[in-house]
Amino acid sequence: MHLQALIRDIPDFPIPGVLFRDITPILQSPEALNFVLEKMVEHVELSKIDLIVGIESRGFILGAALGTRFGKGFVPLRKAGKLPPPVEALSYELEYGKATLEMRPGQGRVLIVDDVLATGGTLAAAVTLCERAGYEIENVSVLINLENLNNMTFREKPIHSILKY
Amino acid sequence: MHLQALIRDIPDFPIPGVLFRDITPILQSPEALNFVLEKMVEHVELSKIDLIVGIESRGFILGAALGTRFGKGFVPLRKAGKLPPPVEALSYELEYGKATLEMRPGQGRVLIVDDVLATGGTLAAAVTLCERAGYEIENVSVLINLENLNNMTFREKPIHSILKY
Repeated sequence: MHLQALIRDIPDFPIPGVLFRDITPILQSPEALNFVLEKMVEHVELSKIDLIVGIESRGFILGAALGTRFGKGFVPLRKAGKLPPPVEALSYELEYGKATLEMRPGQGRVLIVDDVLATGGTLAAAVTLCERAGYEIENVSVLINLENLNNMTFREKPIHSILKY
Repeated sequence: MHLQALIRDIPDFPIPGVLFRDITPILQSPEALNFVLEKMVEHVELSKIDLIVGIESRGFILGAALGTRFGKGFVPLRKAGKLPPPVEALSYELEYGKATLEMRPGQGRVLIVDDVLATGGTLAAAVTLCERAGYEIENVSVLINLENLNNMTFREKPIHSILKY
């Protein structure tokens, strides 16, 4: 499947100088979405995964879809102030501004997912936060890796992605 | 399945006087989530649905899960400034403040979903916005209806929900 044809490139969004990759055409197609879900876990031993962790907001879409497709639970990693207590919180710098992520403490082996890996700030925070919150991180997976903006690794391997720009 | 036992009640969150219903324990359980997905479409003729529309952010979770479970595409209804142009936008009053929803213009028969129906401001805006953006609304579905806060209907019937408080 030629996924790239289903991604719209929008220059200067949300701010000048940023090239936004719009994945909504993929989400609209059940076939394309299923293809993406299969690819996003091809590096993962599914029997070792209890939960999918999705990062707010677009990671919720892929995370919930993956959980449903492969019979795993879903855990949301949310922006500050959205989850009721008790929460584990972590603040970090991101591409344009500063942010805080929060998640519910818990346990289990997780796959962390998001749509786009840009500078890696959010994903690195997600990894740290999952560990602090008590989860065991089995692996990480993203749909798009903007490789010119990061050289992030997980356990000394590049972050698994389906599309690279 | 006794779903209520999987919902945590948190008083005075996010602001004093609001009783927050935390659905994350349902999301964590593949069995509970699948039960919810089946129930959320029991009033719907699935063959008449092309797309599931999920309202940001928790509606993304249920919407993407429903799309994946039943082989439908997913369309996100987002907060202002998140979707690249072209978008259709609608501002409205909500329980604590004011908000704008945006969505990509398109077509197809949709099921609009969200997790909690409170005053109904967001869902009413979603219905109007979907129509303006070119979609045909087949039905609406929520997980929880806080009936004391709204008496919202869709085509003269109460909004379909699984749990009522």
